[in-house]
Amino acid sequence: MLRIISDITIVWEMIGMTKIKLDEKISPYPMPVVIVGSVVDGRPNFMTVAWVNRLNGSPNMWGLAIGKNQYTLEGIRTNQTFSINIPDKDLVVETDYCGIVSGRTVDKSELFEVFYGELESAPMIRKCPVNLECSVYDIVELPSASLVLGEIKASHTEERFMTDGRLDPKKINPIMFTALDNQYWIMGESVGDAFQIGKQLSK
Amino acid sequence: MLRIISDITIVWEMIGMTKIKLDEKISPYPMPVVIVGSVVDGRPNFMTVAWVNRLNGSPNMWGLAIGKNQYTLEGIRTNQTFSINIPDKDLVVETDYCGIVSGRTVDKSELFEVFYGELESAPMIRKCPVNLECSVYDIVELPSASLVLGEIKASHTEERFMTDGRLDPKKINPIMFTALDNQYWIMGESVGDAFQIGKQLSK
Repeated sequence: MLRIISDITIVWEMIGMTKIKLDEKISPYPMPVVIVGSVVDGRPNFMTVAWVNRLNGSPNMWGLAIGKNQYTLEGIRTNQTFSINIPDKDLVVETDYCGIVSGRTVDKSELFEVFYGELESAPMIRKCPVNLECSVYDIVELPSASLVLGEIKASHTEERFMTDGRLDPKKINPIMFTALDNQYWIMGESVGDAFQIGKQLSK
Repeated sequence: MLRIISDITIVWEMIGMTKIKLDEKISPYPMPVVIVGSVVDGRPNFMTVAWVNRLNGSPNMWGLAIGKNQYTLEGIRTNQTFSINIPDKDLVVETDYCGIVSGRTVDKSELFEVFYGELESAPMIRKCPVNLECSVYDIVELPSASLVLGEIKASHTEERFMTDGRLDPKKINPIMFTALDNQYWIMGESVGDAFQIGKQLSK
């Protein structure tokens, strides 16, 4: 169908075949992976969430999209608090486990050493490189998920994850998740300075 | 302050120094980077967004948090449509550029070869490995950002980004952004099978 030519994409564009349609259910990139801590039925519970990201600058707000029937959501609704814990590569097994089993049937309160900060009902995982304490700003109901909007009240780390007084992504060594193939990944190499490398296109 | 010992973290825990508090404004992990396409003032415009993630399973919904004064937001409000384009490593300069300059002052309509799918006002970037056409489900107003909730109506790729009929994250080669140090990153190695490796903790 295609003649042999040096740049196959040019031929594809010429014959209008460049793009193909996909199933619209795709999640096409690596998503950050966090473990959400909450207190449910009087004990700490932990749930892995990949549908998470920052939503507002000031105050620092984050969104978690959680299935409406999740056990964690009960604790968040009751206490109006939760934690976001950033696991590293060494915690990938525990991270996966917290995404597989529900706190409704398995007690996960002893899985991690837990500590608390300013908020009494936001249990945090000591082994995770970064911990964020959040209070609920609002919960937006979507068709099959509840979008929890959290405001960060305090954040915690250890000196060994910092360089020159600043958190260092490579030392944190976070994991990401691709739903395309159900894989966890670590970060690769840096490929450019943000807010800098694009300036070369300005005339 | 610390005695020399093989596992420094144990000492830190013993003396209660493990965790330190951070500025609460942090964004502690690599965020996905996408280029959002919209039609503003009659022409295609493109804006880089890192505050993006999936929010709902069925329908497939995504959220973009965008500063309230962004030019792109005018087009999204007017047309109730937009595109999410996943750039790869080779587009990191253009991606950064679209995050530096505003369409209000610079015409970005000629920066990329554009194509359209089902939605007339969702311009997509041909060079990006994956393109999602979205219609607006709702816009939630937050203190300093507008959270655009989009429903994916169609998605597009090329055969060369697939393996065995499925999108392949390594072939897409997406970029991520860390706000901690203003860097772009590519994915590293796979470190585990999701929904599998955690099973070893089940008794």
